[in-house]
Amino acid sequence: MIHVPAGAAKNSKNVVVSEEPFTVPGFSVSAAASRMRYKNRLDLALIVSDHEAAAAGVFTGNRFCAAPVILCKEHLRGGHARCILVNAGYANACTGEEGLDRARKMAGLAAEKIGVSPGSVLVASTGVIGPQIELAPMERVFPDLVEGLAPHKWEDVACAIMTTDTVPKMASTSVPVGGKNVTIGGVAKGSGMIAPHMATLLVFVCTDALISQEVLEHWVRIGAEHSFNAITVDGDTSTNDTLLVMAGGKAENPLVSDVESEESRAFGEGLQAVLLQLARKVVLDGEGATKLIEITVSSAPDVKSAKKIAFTIANSPLVKTAFFGEDANWGRIVAAAGRAGVELDPLRTSLHFEDVCVFRSGVPLLSEAVEVEATKVCRQKNIRVNLDLGLGEGTFTAYTCDFSCDYVKINASYRS
Amino acid sequence: MIHVPAGAAKNSKNVVVSEEPFTVPGFSVSAAASRMRYKNRLDLALIVSDHEAAAAGVFTGNRFCAAPVILCKEHLRGGHARCILVNAGYANACTGEEGLDRARKMAGLAAEKIGVSPGSVLVASTGVIGPQIELAPMERVFPDLVEGLAPHKWEDVACAIMTTDTVPKMASTSVPVGGKNVTIGGVAKGSGMIAPHMATLLVFVCTDALISQEVLEHWVRIGAEHSFNAITVDGDTSTNDTLLVMAGGKAENPLVSDVESEESRAFGEGLQAVLLQLARKVVLDGEGATKLIEITVSSAPDVKSAKKIAFTIANSPLVKTAFFGEDANWGRIVAAAGRAGVELDPLRTSLHFEDVCVFRSGVPLLSEAVEVEATKVCRQKNIRVNLDLGLGEGTFTAYTCDFSCDYVKINASYRS
Repeated sequence: MIHVPAGAAKNSKNVVVSEEPFTVPGFSVSAAASRMRYKNRLDLALIVSDHEAAAAGVFTGNRFCAAPVILCKEHLRGGHARCILVNAGYANACTGEEGLDRARKMAGLAAEKIGVSPGSVLVASTGVIGPQIELAPMERVFPDLVEGLAPHKWEDVACAIMTTDTVPKMASTSVPVGGKNVTIGGVAKGSGMIAPHMATLLVFVCTDALISQEVLEHWVRIGAEHSFNAITVDGDTSTNDTLLVMAGGKAENPLVSDVESEESRAFGEGLQAVLLQLARKVVLDGEGATKLIEITVSSAPDVKSAKKIAFTIANSPLVKTAFFGEDANWGRIVAAAGRAGVELDPLRTSLHFEDVCVFRSGVPLLSEAVEVEATKVCRQKNIRVNLDLGLGEGTFTAYTCDFSCDYVKINASYRS
Repeated sequence: MIHVPAGAAKNSKNVVVSEEPFTVPGFSVSAAASRMRYKNRLDLALIVSDHEAAAAGVFTGNRFCAAPVILCKEHLRGGHARCILVNAGYANACTGEEGLDRARKMAGLAAEKIGVSPGSVLVASTGVIGPQIELAPMERVFPDLVEGLAPHKWEDVACAIMTTDTVPKMASTSVPVGGKNVTIGGVAKGSGMIAPHMATLLVFVCTDALISQEVLEHWVRIGAEHSFNAITVDGDTSTNDTLLVMAGGKAENPLVSDVESEESRAFGEGLQAVLLQLARKVVLDGEGATKLIEITVSSAPDVKSAKKIAFTIANSPLVKTAFFGEDANWGRIVAAAGRAGVELDPLRTSLHFEDVCVFRSGVPLLSEAVEVEATKVCRQKNIRVNLDLGLGEGTFTAYTCDFSCDYVKINASYRS
């Protein structure tokens, strides 16, 4: 059900993605416990490239964007970076000028200790919004962080960036690019999309592919659109959401600089598969989530309409609570589609739960056999729903989770 | 906190609205138990005007709109009506051509028994979507329905149209129009905005004002915009949502035909107050709701932006669960505003819980005293929140409820 947009890699299904620990040639990583806010856990992560790497990022669209997001955008103007420094505990959001100054000092600290220019350091923060980050705890632990750098510690990084997450999230793959096997591996955190206090979405992916910044940026943008920009837990977007990708070039493949080339597409396919796997893990770790639901809207007038309807369904509390109740509630899905603000024709619309058709030509198929089969589908942990509009060529898949009592409990009781 | 749009009545606060049983001169009503689906309760309601009345309606924007909605739009083309017939149990939505045919027969039945033209009958249905309504039970009980017609039975009507509602909803007022006291009274049902299976929003308001159809339609449209179109329980919109207003003229005031006249504004103010009171009752009866929250966005660039932000906040599950937890969670409100897709300037933004300022110039006011005061506000049953953008003149108030564990339980377990 991976959606392949026009101009994207043709079939990411062929890419095998691992969720086990991995290494990316040319990159070393480490994590430490700064005790800035949490007392007994890793909360600081460092990712360093041996050489200057091509770098690209995608950030939150939230108008209250956090200080590290502002700084990353500034540092990415040149299209290159050497390292990423991340802290968990405080988000450095809604912190004013002082917050931006501290983000700059955080980057400066890494630059000094690693011996790179401050402009080549990318920073990210996640945690409570409002309070300032503290620099002293980071300074204190930085020597350990640098000393601990090693290629195999990605799981530590995945753990250090967690907040309300219940599991660390890793994904990696290897794809042939110009006769060389290229590795693409990354980590993510996020649970609840997005509880602004803590559950920011952070994603860091590294690859040893030798690729131009323009081509990298192209695939990061497309990959994000059909992975992290296609998921929703509750429709909220954090002040800190950040996706960063660095390409170091250690694989020594011929430079990929033509976005239309076969090598470029092979890389794009691999990146998209890694991003989608990380995104799925984020949805399944959604606060209180018990199911992963893939909502595909097909035969829409265009992709934009398909996306609008898919997200209206994926964000509907009534649809999400029905899935929690394992109820094949076609009526709520159809009604959500109907209010998405997109023209559609009930008489051409059909709805499937996996292969079970429950609605066709404007009316439900109300037989007992259909009900039994559809209910069976709703008991699955991973459910695919397809709403076909019968109008055009546009298709989009949104990924969501169900809405449980635990979601309410977590978010009603939780602060800081 | 009643929002007064440009061109609307200046101050609906001066209008006293009663929630007690009422009568509207020139109208008689009745209710009966048809046993079409429910076995031991009123489920059929009839509202009849002595004379042909000016009539106007506002309907669901859902593309899968129900058969009675299609029929009402057709019958309202002339701008007049004699009666409204409503059934609860089956919604007559997603029922195809057969459903429209049955809606027509439902109107025909009332026309025949009351002795009016079929085109002057408005119909509405609420209940499960999918199955056809049954005409035989209605036919059987119709003589009782006609015989029972009386001016004082509005509470029966309010009860007959309930589905998942827990309380009947009535509101009425009296306003001076051209030297006469004019009565405006109505009933509503709705709980969950809107569980497509059952919790459709239906509103029927009658008045004895003598008013032209054009002026009536103007105030119905404006009144709906700032009452029923300003509330949200979960962002969902039903296939059947219907607001109908009939004006019979029995008050014998000089005909109100100039929308700008003082008499017109007095009527508009009264109608808006009745609609807003009914809307508030619907929100407070929201599935699992424990609190009514008024989200006002002020000093926005324009009303459209204010509305967009107000609804993004009002529909955020994170904001709504925080209110359930009685948590003065400024961060979730600010983050929701930030992702509404409207340009805003954090440095000009401030947020109040009632009179308590919790956020100003892009940063939170994090003192313990502020926290204590804000938490005190969040323990209220009715909470007013004001987000001031410091940019322009646009203001909009959205009305929402909190999101409780019971909401999830009701909607996960409930079907038909």
